[in-house]
Amino acid sequence: MTSWSAELPFVRGTTPPYYAAILTTALSTEPADLVGYAEAAAEMADLAAQIDGYLGMEFARDEGCGITVSYWRDLNALRNWRDNLEHVAAQRQGRERFYRGYRARISRVEREYEWARQG
Amino acid sequence: MTSWSAELPFVRGTTPPYYAAILTTALSTEPADLVGYAEAAAEMADLAAQIDGYLGMEFARDEGCGITVSYWRDLNALRNWRDNLEHVAAQRQGRERFYRGYRARISRVEREYEWARQG
Repeated sequence: MTSWSAELPFVRGTTPPYYAAILTTALSTEPADLVGYAEAAAEMADLAAQIDGYLGMEFARDEGCGITVSYWRDLNALRNWRDNLEHVAAQRQGRERFYRGYRARISRVEREYEWARQG
Repeated sequence: MTSWSAELPFVRGTTPPYYAAILTTALSTEPADLVGYAEAAAEMADLAAQIDGYLGMEFARDEGCGITVSYWRDLNALRNWRDNLEHVAAQRQGRERFYRGYRARISRVEREYEWARQG
């Protein structure tokens, strides 16, 4: 099983092969456009977690740039996420308000490794 | 050819299939540990760009969490990056100072799409 740890903010317990959706966004430079952005992102994470085959999600946001990586058991789970109506509506809201642009990549994870400090 | 745009902080011009290395890090909670971190990250980006088969790099850093995605033409290019001596030394420095832990994933990009606001 996978788990998310508040102590270590990366998704653990996954075993290749599986899929990663990498979404890199250019955020609006207008602060007013970003009101509600963090809440919308958190809602999407909750929604994704309800989909069968969801393995986890990682997120980091910098000045003007956000990277979200979500992990999925297979392409079918990823398709269900892509076609989810609330997700589609949130993407539209993103294009209208939050984003200046984005690039989305679907990739198959072949190998992974982890390091964590002891103690 | 690929390009990086200051206006749009994602890597453009790539065509699948190619490889993505997803590095998700838990950053030290001690601010003193992170002195020099941004400079070291920028140096690594410059170093990676010298390797044949490098396609680009995306980076976002949040409170306590960093995501770096680097893109590579093939596994051979990725191996040259992994085995680069300066990169190996920087990883050691990361484990000793910057990171509490990380997870690295090697994935094959199968599909991608982009949206950018007009005007």
